[in-house]
Amino acid sequence: MRLRLGMVGGGEGAFIGAVHRLAARMDDEFELVAGAFSSDAENCRRTGERLHLDPQRCYRDFSRMAQAEAARADGIDAVAIVTPNYLHAPVASAFLNAGIDVICDKPLCNSYAEALQLAETVRRSGRQLILTHNYSAYPLVREARSRVLAGELGELRFIEVEYLQEWLAQPLELTDNKQAGWRAQPEKAGAGCIGDVGTHAWQLAQFVSGLLPQAISAELSTFIAGRRLDDDVRVQMRYANGAKGRLWASQVACGHENGLRLRVYGSEGSLAFCQEQPNQLWVRPRDAPAYCITRASSFQYAENRQLARVPAGHPEGYLEGFGQIYREAARRLREGPQAAPLLPGIEAGVQGMAFIDAAQRSSLAGGEWIDIEEFIFH
Amino acid sequence: MRLRLGMVGGGEGAFIGAVHRLAARMDDEFELVAGAFSSDAENCRRTGERLHLDPQRCYRDFSRMAQAEAARADGIDAVAIVTPNYLHAPVASAFLNAGIDVICDKPLCNSYAEALQLAETVRRSGRQLILTHNYSAYPLVREARSRVLAGELGELRFIEVEYLQEWLAQPLELTDNKQAGWRAQPEKAGAGCIGDVGTHAWQLAQFVSGLLPQAISAELSTFIAGRRLDDDVRVQMRYANGAKGRLWASQVACGHENGLRLRVYGSEGSLAFCQEQPNQLWVRPRDAPAYCITRASSFQYAENRQLARVPAGHPEGYLEGFGQIYREAARRLREGPQAAPLLPGIEAGVQGMAFIDAAQRSSLAGGEWIDIEEFIFH
Amino acid sequence: MRLRLGMVGGGEGAFIGAVHRLAARMDDEFELVAGAFSSDAENCRRTGERLHLDPQRCYRDFSRMAQAEAARADGIDAVAIVTPNYLHAPVASAFLNAGIDVICDKPLCNSYAEALQLAETVRRSGRQLILTHNYSAYPLVREARSRVLAGELGELRFIEVEYLQEWLAQPLELTDNKQAGWRAQPEKAGAGCIGDVGTHAWQLAQFVSGLLPQAISAELSTFIAGRRLDDDVRVQMRYANGAKGRLWASQVACGHENGLRLRVYGSEGSLAFCQEQPNQLWVRPRDAPAYCITRASSFQYAENRQLARVPAGHPEGYLEGFGQIYREAARRLREGPQAAPLLPGIEAGVQGMAFIDAAQRSSLAGGEWIDIEEFIFH
Amino acid sequence: MRLRLGMVGGGEGAFIGAVHRLAARMDDEFELVAGAFSSDAENCRRTGERLHLDPQRCYRDFSRMAQAEAARADGIDAVAIVTPNYLHAPVASAFLNAGIDVICDKPLCNSYAEALQLAETVRRSGRQLILTHNYSAYPLVREARSRVLAGELGELRFIEVEYLQEWLAQPLELTDNKQAGWRAQPEKAGAGCIGDVGTHAWQLAQFVSGLLPQAISAELSTFIAGRRLDDDVRVQMRYANGAKGRLWASQVACGHENGLRLRVYGSEGSLAFCQEQPNQLWVRPRDAPAYCITRASSFQYAENRQLARVPAGHPEGYLEGFGQIYREAARRLREGPQAAPLLPGIEAGVQGMAFIDAAQRSSLAGGEWIDIEEFIFH
Repeated sequence: MRLRLGMVGGGEGAFIGAVHRLAARMDDEFELVAGAFSSDAENCRRTGERLHLDPQRCYRDFSRMAQAEAARADGIDAVAIVTPNYLHAPVASAFLNAGIDVICDKPLCNSYAEALQLAETVRRSGRQLILTHNYSAYPLVREARSRVLAGELGELRFIEVEYLQEWLAQPLELTDNKQAGWRAQPEKAGAGCIGDVGTHAWQLAQFVSGLLPQAISAELSTFIAGRRLDDDVRVQMRYANGAKGRLWASQVACGHENGLRLRVYGSEGSLAFCQEQPNQLWVRPRDAPAYCITRASSFQYAENRQLARVPAGHPEGYLEGFGQIYREAARRLREGPQAAPLLPGIEAGVQGMAFIDAAQRSSLAGGEWIDIEEFIFH
Repeated sequence: MRLRLGMVGGGEGAFIGAVHRLAARMDDEFELVAGAFSSDAENCRRTGERLHLDPQRCYRDFSRMAQAEAARADGIDAVAIVTPNYLHAPVASAFLNAGIDVICDKPLCNSYAEALQLAETVRRSGRQLILTHNYSAYPLVREARSRVLAGELGELRFIEVEYLQEWLAQPLELTDNKQAGWRAQPEKAGAGCIGDVGTHAWQLAQFVSGLLPQAISAELSTFIAGRRLDDDVRVQMRYANGAKGRLWASQVACGHENGLRLRVYGSEGSLAFCQEQPNQLWVRPRDAPAYCITRASSFQYAENRQLARVPAGHPEGYLEGFGQIYREAARRLREGPQAAPLLPGIEAGVQGMAFIDAAQRSSLAGGEWIDIEEFIFH
Repeated sequence: MRLRLGMVGGGEGAFIGAVHRLAARMDDEFELVAGAFSSDAENCRRTGERLHLDPQRCYRDFSRMAQAEAARADGIDAVAIVTPNYLHAPVASAFLNAGIDVICDKPLCNSYAEALQLAETVRRSGRQLILTHNYSAYPLVREARSRVLAGELGELRFIEVEYLQEWLAQPLELTDNKQAGWRAQPEKAGAGCIGDVGTHAWQLAQFVSGLLPQAISAELSTFIAGRRLDDDVRVQMRYANGAKGRLWASQVACGHENGLRLRVYGSEGSLAFCQEQPNQLWVRPRDAPAYCITRASSFQYAENRQLARVPAGHPEGYLEGFGQIYREAARRLREGPQAAPLLPGIEAGVQGMAFIDAAQRSSLAGGEWIDIEEFIFH
Repeated sequence: MRLRLGMVGGGEGAFIGAVHRLAARMDDEFELVAGAFSSDAENCRRTGERLHLDPQRCYRDFSRMAQAEAARADGIDAVAIVTPNYLHAPVASAFLNAGIDVICDKPLCNSYAEALQLAETVRRSGRQLILTHNYSAYPLVREARSRVLAGELGELRFIEVEYLQEWLAQPLELTDNKQAGWRAQPEKAGAGCIGDVGTHAWQLAQFVSGLLPQAISAELSTFIAGRRLDDDVRVQMRYANGAKGRLWASQVACGHENGLRLRVYGSEGSLAFCQEQPNQLWVRPRDAPAYCITRASSFQYAENRQLARVPAGHPEGYLEGFGQIYREAARRLREGPQAAPLLPGIEAGVQGMAFIDAAQRSSLAGGEWIDIEEFIFH
C-alpha cells in the first residue's frame, strides 16, 4: 500500500509544492489524497482538481484538514508542509497534535523560540517531523560524508561552504514574482538569505563533516536598497578540534544560479562537491592525483551506491535527491524513528534556527563570536 | 483523468522497465494498471504486486493482455514495450492490432524488413507508435535543435557524434548479468552496439541537425573474443549540402560511463552537448567568446525553457529527459498525432533500422558507401 | 642593446632565481652579467660558471657587488633580488644607494617598519624598485582589471580571493627541503603563509578591483605542531563603497598545488580567474550566459591582447606572466618611471607589508577590525 | 658555451620564427648569431638589428649563409629553418651539405619524393635533422607515452586524435594576413590543413601510442570556395594489432582555437590529453575512478617530471613545450645522435610526408585504403 499524503501549501503560483509532489511520486511510495493548497478557496479547488483529488479532501484551512483527516479511517499518513516559512510551525503543530506525521520544508520556522516550542510539540506528540534538507540526500553528498567519517581526510582542518544565487540581485520583490514577494517580508519569511539558502549550507557542512561548530561570527548584509531582510551572509566557524570554517550565502551574487558548493579539507586530503554537478565528487588525497567519484559507480560505498535510480553516466539531479528524502521518509513512516537515520528531522531544524539566531546576534554585535549549543532531541 | 498504461517486459532483473515507469509517473499523466512483465509467471505476479496492480491485470502473455485490455471498458490507453529487442515488433503488432497505442523502447525491432512491416501495421491500425529516444527530449538538446534550425550556425559543415561506454569492455555476458546477457545474443538483440547505443547517436545527430545523411560508410567490429555481435561501430556520413559527419559508438571504450556527445559545426559557429552534463549547452560562435546556455535559464528559446521542471541551477537528469517523452506521449495520446511533433515515432524507428541495415552492409563490403533513403510515414 | 642585469641570490638549491633568469631572458631584453648568487663562495662560483658569467663579476657579497658594478662603465643597469625575504631590504638599499635600479621578489621585506624605511631609501635614491607580483601580469588578469575598471560589473559587491597550497601540509621544514627551510624561520621569512602567498592574493585583489579595503579582520593559524610561523590565514575585508571581501591563503590545504583564484562580483556581473588555468577568464553577466574570454583572442581589450606572445589556443603559463614583469621592467628602466604604469613597485610592496602588519595585529586581537591606510609614494 | 644558432626565415611578419627564437633562448643553451630572415633585404637587416646580430651575419640568401657560416671558425652549430614549407628542403640541404645540423619546422617539406631525397641528403651528410613537432615535447604527452608503453592501458584498441582550428573558416587568405597567404598557395605550402596541422596530429598519435598504422583511408575537403588546398581532413587508421584510429584535422571548425586533442584507449583504460590544457593528463582506468595527472607532480614518471621548469600548479604552456625541443636539440648537438631519443627527426619527417601522400591518394580514390610503410632511417 502506498502511504497517503496530504499537503498544505503548493497551490498555483507556488514553486516548492510541485517539487514535493514530484519527489513523493518518484518512487511510488506515496499517493497524494488531501490538501489545503491555498488560502484562496478557488486556487485550492483548482489545484486539487488538477491533482485528481477528491474535492471533499480539498480543505480551505489546515486546521480543519488536520482534524478531518485524523478522523478518517483512510486519513493521511503524513502531511507535507510547503507554505511560506511563517506557517510552518502552526501547520506542523496542528498536524502533530492531530497525531499526523509531518514532512516540512526548510527552514523549520520563523524564530529560534518558535523552533524550541515546535520541538516540544514534536516530543509531546510522539510523531515524526522530517525536514527536507534535500541537498544532504544526494548520493554523492552521502558518499562525501561516508568518506569523511571513515577518516579518509584525516583530521579535519577546513570546512568551506558557499551557496550563491543571482536571482535577487535586483529588487525582484517589487515585481509580481510571488516567490520573491513573500521571501522579502520579514513577517512571512522570518529571515532572508540566511534562512532561505544559508540554512541549507549550514546543514550540509554539518552533515558531511559530522561536526557542529563551537562558535560562529557572522555578518549579514542587505545590498538592495529598501530590502528589509538580509540578502548576503558571511559566517566564520570555529570547531572544537581546531578546524576552521567559512560559510557564504548570497542571493545577490551575479553569475550564480544555485551555486551550493562544499569543500572539506583534512590532514590527509580534501573533498569537493558542487550541487550543480551532483553526479561528481572530487577527492584530492594529499600527495596523490585528484580523482572523481561518479554517482552509481562501483567505487562508491555500497550504502551510497544503492541510492542511485539509474546507472552511472545517466545523470540524476535535484529531483532525484529530493525524491531520496521522500523515499527515506516512507521508510521511516513505515518502520519507525530508527529507520533512515540520515534523514534530517526536528534536530536539524532547531539547529538551523539556532544558527540563524546566533548569526543575527553576532552580526548585530559587529561580528562577535557566539557559542553554538548542540540541540539534542530526546 | 490519468491515462491508463500497460507494460510488457520490465519484470524483476530488468532495467529499462523501471525507468519507463518512473518517467510515466513523473508528471502524473499516467497510471500503470496492467502488465505482462515477464514470461516467468511468478516474476510477473510479484512485479505486479509490488506495483500495486490488480492481479487480474497481470498477464502471463502479451497477446492475451492485448485482447483482454482491448475488451475492457477501463482498458489501457497505451502500452509501454520494454522487452528485449526481438519482441518489440510482435508485441507492438499485437497491441496496435488490438487498437492500442504503443510506446516502444529503441531500437524499433530486430531488422529493417521487420521495421517496414511494423510501419505497415502502424499505418493500417491508425494507432500511434512512440519510440523512446529519450536523449532527444533533453531541454538543451531541443535548444540545440532550435538554434541549428534557426540558422545560428550558418551552413552546417560537420556533425560529430559519439556514444562511448565501458561496460562491455570485458565479456560481461559470460557472467549472470542479465542486461549483458540478452544484448549479446543476435537472436534477441538483432544488433549489438550499433542497435543498443548507435541508434541513439544516429537519431540525436539527425534530430539536432535536421539533416539525414545521403550516404554512409561503416565499420563494425567485435573486440571481445567470442562475442557474436558488434561492440564497436564507426560510421562516416555524407550530407546533401556537402557537410560531413562521423559517428562512433562503442561499448568497449574504457573510461566512459554513458558518453553520448554531440557536436555540430557550421560556417557561423558550433554547438556541443554532452549527455553526462545535460544542464549545459556550449555555443561557440565564430570569432566570439564561447558561452554556456544553462537549462531553464532565460536565454533559452521559450519553447525549450518551458520544458524545465525545476529552475536553472537545480540540475535535471536522465529521468527528467525520459519523463519528457512520456509527457509528450500523453499529449499526443490525448490530442492526436499532430500534437508533440518532436516526439520520435515510427519514422525515427524505421530510419534507425535502415541505419543499422546500411551500416552492416557497408561494413561487410569493407566500408563501401551506401545510400540512405529517407523513410517518410504517411 | 640589452639591459645588463645582476642578481643577488639564486644559487644552487634556490627556486625563484631560475624563474627570474628565465623571465628576464624570455623577451631578450636583459643579459645577466653579474651576480652574488650565494653566501657560499663555491656555490656562487659554480652558478656563475654555469650561467656563462665572467668570474670577475661573481661576487661573494652583495655590498661589494653594488659598489663594483656601480663603478664599472659597463656596470649592471638593474639588480634582481631573489634571496630569502630578510635580505630584501638590505640588498635593495645597497643597490639603490649605489644608484642601481632594483627588481625585487615579494614580499618586499621583513616588516612594515622596514618597508617604510626602504620606501624612504627608494625616494632618496631616485631609483626604481620593481616588485615581482607576477600574477598581476597575466594577460587575463589585466583583462579582468580592464573590465572591472570599465564598469562592466557595475558597482562592486564582493571580492573573493584564495591562494591554496598543499606543500606544507606536512612539516617539510624538518626535511632538507631548502625552500621549506628558510620559509619556516621567522628571522629569515618575516612572515609565514601570509607573506609567502597571502601578499600575492592581497595584491591581486587590489590590482583587479582597483580598490583598497578600508579595514580588515584576520585570523592567522598554524596547523602543524612546532611550526613557528602561520601556515593559514583568513581575512575579511570591508571596502569604502560597502563591498565586502574575503581572502584565504593556506599552505596546508590538501589537494591544491598553486590554487590562486580570484572572483569579483558587482551589481551587473562577475568575473572569475584561476591561476592554474591562466588562458581563460570567465565572465558572468547578470541575466545572460556566462562566457569565456581566452588569452590572445580578439575579444580581449587591445591593450591586453598585445601582451600575448603566441596566438589564442597556444597556452601561455606562469613563466610568460613572469616574463611580462621583466618586459615591462625593461620598458620602465629604459623610459623612466611613467612607463609601464601597471608594474608593481614600492607602493605595492609597502601596501603588502601594511597588510601583513594589520593582519597580524588583528589576529592577535582576536579578529579586531584594523584600518588600512593607503600608502602613496611620491 | 652556448651553441651558436642561425636562422633562415623569421623576419618581420612571420610567426613561427619568433617562437623558435624564444624556445631556443628559454634554457640559455643557444645564442642566435646569424640569419637569413627574409628574401627582402631591408626586412632581413631590420630583423637582424632588432635581434642584436652582427650585420655581417645577416645574409641575403641562405646558400651564401650556409657557405659563409661553414667557413667561419665561430660559425653556427645549427640552423633553424622557419620558412614557408617549400623552402624547407632546399634550405636544409644547403646547410646539411655545408656540414651544419638542421632544426626544421614541420612539415618536413613539400612532397614525399622530396622527403626521401632529403633523407638521403641527411644520410650522406652525416648531420642531424631535428623536426620541431613541439606537441610531442609536452611533459604530459611524454607521460602519456610512458604510460602507454609501460602497458598501463593494456592492449590498445582506439586512437583518436583531432586538431581543430577556426582561423580559416573564412577566406582569410584573401586579406593581407601573411600567415594565411602562403599557407593557401599549393606551391608554397605543399599541402593544406593536412600538412599544417594534420601532420602534428599524426605524429602525436604515433608518438604516444608507439604504433604506426598499417593502412589509412582519408577524405580531404575544401570548404571555402576558391581555396586551392584542403582545409579539412578526416582519416581512418587500421593498426596491426586490430586497433582502429581516427584523425580529424580542420581549419574551418568554428569555435576551436588550437584544439589538438588525443585519446588513447586500451583494454585496461584510457588516456586523454588536450593541448589547450597541457598541465593535465586524464587517466581513466577500467572500473576505477578517473584521475588527473598534473605536470610536475610527484605522480609522474621521474623521466617526465624532470622536464618541468616550474613546480606543479605553476602552469607551463606552448613555449615551454617548444623549448623542450630546443633543450633536447642542444643535448643531441652536443652529445650526438643517440642523445635525446624522443626528439623527432628525419624519420618522423619522412613518415609525415608519407602520411600526406597516402592521404591525398586515398582521398582521390574515394577513400581507398592505402598501406603505410614504415620509414626507417639508418
